[in-house]
Amino acid sequence: MQPDLLDRAHVAQILHQFRTRSPLVHCMTNDVVQAFTANVLLALGASPAMVIEREEAQQFSTIADALLINVGTLTHERAQAMQAAIHGAREAGTPWTLDPVAVGALTFRSQFCRDILALQPAAIRGNASEILALAGMSAGGRGVDTTDTASAALPAAQALARQTGAVVAVTGEVDYITDGLRTRIVIGGDPLMTRVVGTGCALSAVVAACCALPGDRLDNVAAGCAFVAQAGSRAMAHCSGPGSFVPAFLDALYTLSGEALV
Amino acid sequence: MQPDLLDRAHVAQILHQFRTRSPLVHCMTNDVVQAFTANVLLALGASPAMVIEREEAQQFSTIADALLINVGTLTHERAQAMQAAIHGAREAGTPWTLDPVAVGALTFRSQFCRDILALQPAAIRGNASEILALAGMSAGGRGVDTTDTASAALPAAQALARQTGAVVAVTGEVDYITDGLRTRIVIGGDPLMTRVVGTGCALSAVVAACCALPGDRLDNVAAGCAFVAQAGSRAMAHCSGPGSFVPAFLDALYTLSGEALV
Amino acid sequence: MQPDLLDRAHVAQILHQFRTRSPLVHCMTNDVVQAFTANVLLALGASPAMVIEREEAQQFSTIADALLINVGTLTHERAQAMQAAIHGAREAGTPWTLDPVAVGALTFRSQFCRDILALQPAAIRGNASEILALAGMSAGGRGVDTTDTASAALPAAQALARQTGAVVAVTGEVDYITDGLRTRIVIGGDPLMTRVVGTGCALSAVVAACCALPGDRLDNVAAGCAFVAQAGSRAMAHCSGPGSFVPAFLDALYTLSGEALV
Repeated sequence: MQPDLLDRAHVAQILHQFRTRSPLVHCMTNDVVQAFTANVLLALGASPAMVIEREEAQQFSTIADALLINVGTLTHERAQAMQAAIHGAREAGTPWTLDPVAVGALTFRSQFCRDILALQPAAIRGNASEILALAGMSAGGRGVDTTDTASAALPAAQALARQTGAVVAVTGEVDYITDGLRTRIVIGGDPLMTRVVGTGCALSAVVAACCALPGDRLDNVAAGCAFVAQAGSRAMAHCSGPGSFVPAFLDALYTLSGEALV
Repeated sequence: MQPDLLDRAHVAQILHQFRTRSPLVHCMTNDVVQAFTANVLLALGASPAMVIEREEAQQFSTIADALLINVGTLTHERAQAMQAAIHGAREAGTPWTLDPVAVGALTFRSQFCRDILALQPAAIRGNASEILALAGMSAGGRGVDTTDTASAALPAAQALARQTGAVVAVTGEVDYITDGLRTRIVIGGDPLMTRVVGTGCALSAVVAACCALPGDRLDNVAAGCAFVAQAGSRAMAHCSGPGSFVPAFLDALYTLSGEALV
Repeated sequence: MQPDLLDRAHVAQILHQFRTRSPLVHCMTNDVVQAFTANVLLALGASPAMVIEREEAQQFSTIADALLINVGTLTHERAQAMQAAIHGAREAGTPWTLDPVAVGALTFRSQFCRDILALQPAAIRGNASEILALAGMSAGGRGVDTTDTASAALPAAQALARQTGAVVAVTGEVDYITDGLRTRIVIGGDPLMTRVVGTGCALSAVVAACCALPGDRLDNVAAGCAFVAQAGSRAMAHCSGPGSFVPAFLDALYTLSGEALV
């Protein structure tokens, strides 16, 4: 099956819905990227909130429009709170998204990710090494960085999508988004983005937000990848390195318009 | 009672005192905004320190000039450390400030905020929904965002000030600062600031620092709101979105001069 | 003994090695500076990862090329995880670096730092007050800020280096780096850097990364200080305050070339 490029008008329509609905996203993410994640969601028009104590997390996931679970700085306490939040989300019908940071290389988070995979995530977003490891096809990357290309992980992503029912996005210089049957491809972004902490994690938050939108979840998630790739490409034209990339990227997300989308 | 605009020369004088004294501010704030909060205090001339383990928090609040309690990512452990810090602060005569993030919507933090309200905060800073919820007049906003206007929350702010003895700042496009009898009004800032995570939380840190200054606490807190509003307005003239707003805002806080204050 | 300025060609060579090897740095650092620390390491060409749960921390420190221990927001739980990570690092021969933030002023972290000093750190990086306190020669600074000059702390740094076997960097407007016998001096940077949270903490992360390089550890650590000082000086030429300093500094680290080093 050949991956499809996303239709430009469709992405513009999804962006419009994103801004109109402004999904309230419950982010249970790692300690390193919380501010950047919140700023990415705010710039794009969503409403982030980080709530982490177990009972509050469970309560808030029933109020929120979407839930993000990112295991980057997982602790035993946070793992319990995340499970409570996922249970709250499932009861309320809130879609939840998994970012399996550095899965494979580390035992505790690998076991945790395997456990929660059974809880029907709406989406999974990771780099190639993470998706390969999560699908049980490799041992993971180097720290939080991938040692594989996204295309090499596409079969793993498709298998994982079929196994879990999630839309799986394996992202890198090219992004592949699949529901196991269909696959979308998103081109854009820049290698410089790997020199800025949290670009992948923030993309997962955007994916989580997109799962709150009506319509085809595969296209919604692919559109979220396209928003970020497009903003990344634009920011490249206005920066001199990874430092000036960050404000340029947030500005680009804020000013992104449907017409200008590739 | 009609709110008063703050006298410009008075604000300049308070800014001078702020920079001269450089208050050491013990920030017990949420995980999302710690770096931005520290950078705002540093840019304005204060000295922030984040100390969170229970015994250290209690010890440090007796050394610091001011204490900030922000419940954005409250946990049971952090709640205990905050209470220890407040007790240390009260013994040492250190003023403490409450930012009741998302109070009302979530049970655990709402109970915690109600408990510590009895411990004589020097100031409380929140958005309209938070102040209404804290005063027992509504159920809170949408996640961390307000669903009310600041002016609608002024009666709640005044009641809360009378009940607790705190100066209460309810902030938004217009800020109202009240001690229950007198009310000051601060105009400035920009809606774009709601697209940058932590602007409200950082304002609370500035309010906390202002409580360490000599003189009328109402005017000191109102001046802190004016510093931030003024820097926000200036940053707007030098930015293209929420990303470039952040460096411009910090630069504006750093270069803020008494003469240029509105 | 007169401190030596570092040889320019040697610093350039160490920068080349840094970029070629791209050390994987396990950062156990404080909650405030995690994103900035990661971005500094990424901009300079290293690969940071923050892993904090006890068993994962122990596991990861055997995989990583270097370990950073920063006690800025130490908790009992984090202290245990740090000790596990140090033990993992020692078994694997991974060098570990200590940043004793605010040691002296606070009892819990002071005791913790004294305990782990016996575990043979490869390097220690602190401001003058921290190094004096760690060497038992003073009671520490004001919060996280120094109240002493780096040169005043040089004898303490030399004594600490002889006692622990670590390379000790006491940094400020001038940086002194010593192994107890030899001392290197690095000039550069700017007082504005004290108005940006985490510049010292990020420097410690660079020092940690430099300990993973082959060759003379004293020169490697001094070169790390030179990278940061040089990037800081350059960023000063392209910024209008502490806000615009941050992107300019990260860009300068990214574009730093051996030829341009002072």
